[in-house]
Amino acid sequence: MQKIVTIGGGTGQFQILKGLRNYDCEIIAISNMADDGGSSGKLMDEYGILPPGDIRQCMVALADGEKEKILRDLFSYRFKKEEGHNLGNLILTALIDICGGSAEGIEEARKLLGVKHEILPVTLDKAVLCAEDLNGKVLIGESNIDELLGDSKVVRVFYEKPVFVYKKVAKAIREADKLVICSGDLYRSIVPTLIVNGISEALKESKAKKIYVCNLFTKVGTYGFKASDFVKEIENYSGITLEKILVNTQIPSESVKKKYLSEKSVFVEDDMKNDPRIVRGKYVAEYPFERKTFFRHVPEKIAREIIGL
Amino acid sequence: MQKIVTIGGGTGQFQILKGLRNYDCEIIAISNMADDGGSSGKLMDEYGILPPGDIRQCMVALADGEKEKILRDLFSYRFKKEEGHNLGNLILTALIDICGGSAEGIEEARKLLGVKHEILPVTLDKAVLCAEDLNGKVLIGESNIDELLGDSKVVRVFYEKPVFVYKKVAKAIREADKLVICSGDLYRSIVPTLIVNGISEALKESKAKKIYVCNLFTKVGTYGFKASDFVKEIENYSGITLEKILVNTQIPSESVKKKYLSEKSVFVEDDMKNDPRIVRGKYVAEYPFERKTFFRHVPEKIAREIIGL
Repeated sequence: MQKIVTIGGGTGQFQILKGLRNYDCEIIAISNMADDGGSSGKLMDEYGILPPGDIRQCMVALADGEKEKILRDLFSYRFKKEEGHNLGNLILTALIDICGGSAEGIEEARKLLGVKHEILPVTLDKAVLCAEDLNGKVLIGESNIDELLGDSKVVRVFYEKPVFVYKKVAKAIREADKLVICSGDLYRSIVPTLIVNGISEALKESKAKKIYVCNLFTKVGTYGFKASDFVKEIENYSGITLEKILVNTQIPSESVKKKYLSEKSVFVEDDMKNDPRIVRGKYVAEYPFERKTFFRHVPEKIAREIIGL
Repeated sequence: MQKIVTIGGGTGQFQILKGLRNYDCEIIAISNMADDGGSSGKLMDEYGILPPGDIRQCMVALADGEKEKILRDLFSYRFKKEEGHNLGNLILTALIDICGGSAEGIEEARKLLGVKHEILPVTLDKAVLCAEDLNGKVLIGESNIDELLGDSKVVRVFYEKPVFVYKKVAKAIREADKLVICSGDLYRSIVPTLIVNGISEALKESKAKKIYVCNLFTKVGTYGFKASDFVKEIENYSGITLEKILVNTQIPSESVKKKYLSEKSVFVEDDMKNDPRIVRGKYVAEYPFERKTFFRHVPEKIAREIIGL
């Protein structure tokens, strides 16, 4: 049975996990812990726990039982008031308190949702992410990076104080058959995971096939990036060479392009030409949500490609 | 199999339900809906739902599966921040929203916690409780009654606008073998249930044995009350004659008396003498909780007596 480790955060990892869970494989989802905004950040500040948001998303992506459907709905429920808290974040916070530790609380949530795979926080340390931009300005706190960066570029991402890899994560990476770096916010999800002390060493020692599911759109911090820029940054920060890079070739519709352009985001250009590591395919679909339409990897399509590599 | 309907709210009903659930009987717990303070009241105001607090307590009292232990813990968890919300109240609020109705949300919570018995809100209408005191002052809102009453007495309890019994509740009362009015706050839990439109009619038509588990201590609104005063008020408001009255004969310790006296509460005097309806027994124990000690019915003892009647 393939042992697949995923790295990332947010919707990119969510879609990939949702696809992978349908295959007969062992999944270990590594969750980014730099998130300090919104509901997650508030709970972290108030209760001194790890930010629960990304963990929760991995949890919901990997829970598939019919019996647990209502719990999945509860985990995804967001209050209109109560400071916009996500109920899953509140439940995780309570579980961590009741069980007396982050790892224990996550484990209990996993049981509750009937998740058969593993979900691990990349670190158990409190992680304050910083970024330095082109002008030498240093931004402290993950949630401040987008707001303050504007059109500038990130030249360096680092932690305020060193944070160390959770030992189960290092072990999982070393023992993996495949390692998937999921499309996701480069400087707020992917790089923050890669720069945790001990991750790079584990990646270098791992015999896993290193795969990157290339990002679909640029955004604050990656304006102007082409596929090769994402690859270069990931390789720089991780110290490894990617072996397979899954690039989507399906062009978004004009209306989706327009919607993303309103946030200055453009479709990532595939400039990798004949690079032998590139695997191309039509992996995406347009997902309407509330009044917007999102361009996302289709779980079944992207997972099938990963499994087949 | 005995069909037992309980009426009440708060800890009194909680202890009795915890005892009854161990017997081979069918339980229908009727929950008071006048609660408008604290976490419950806030959620009711913000989301236009029924106050979830008493429902949640009945739910936890009746859930006994080993598998559901962690969910029970979650339902009882109270946040230190997040405005002191109880997590069970938040989960019930979300379930009511997700399922599109109070009854549906409660039903889903029941399944989640593996509760085999029924829990029904006495009314599905928005219920604003009012009380008039000796001086003719009218207090609006359940949570304001204690605060404003001081040493005065309640002369009348009523709803601001008429509220009507949930039809399943009326049916349950009519079909019950035993009806248990649980010890609880007389004017904030018991009477508010009895004065819901349709309750008195159902009680009068019911062939159930009508039992009252007598209150243990007086409190704001019932200062100076003896056992017979509680009985009289319940009979006045309900229009029925109680058939069995379970009076505890175990005297609290001096330290417990002192603790309750600090809130002006005194042990309810048993002045019912040779009233043939009285059943006397040592039903209570002292429960330490945080820095206080509470005097409460022991679930096993009080349930055994009820079942045997």
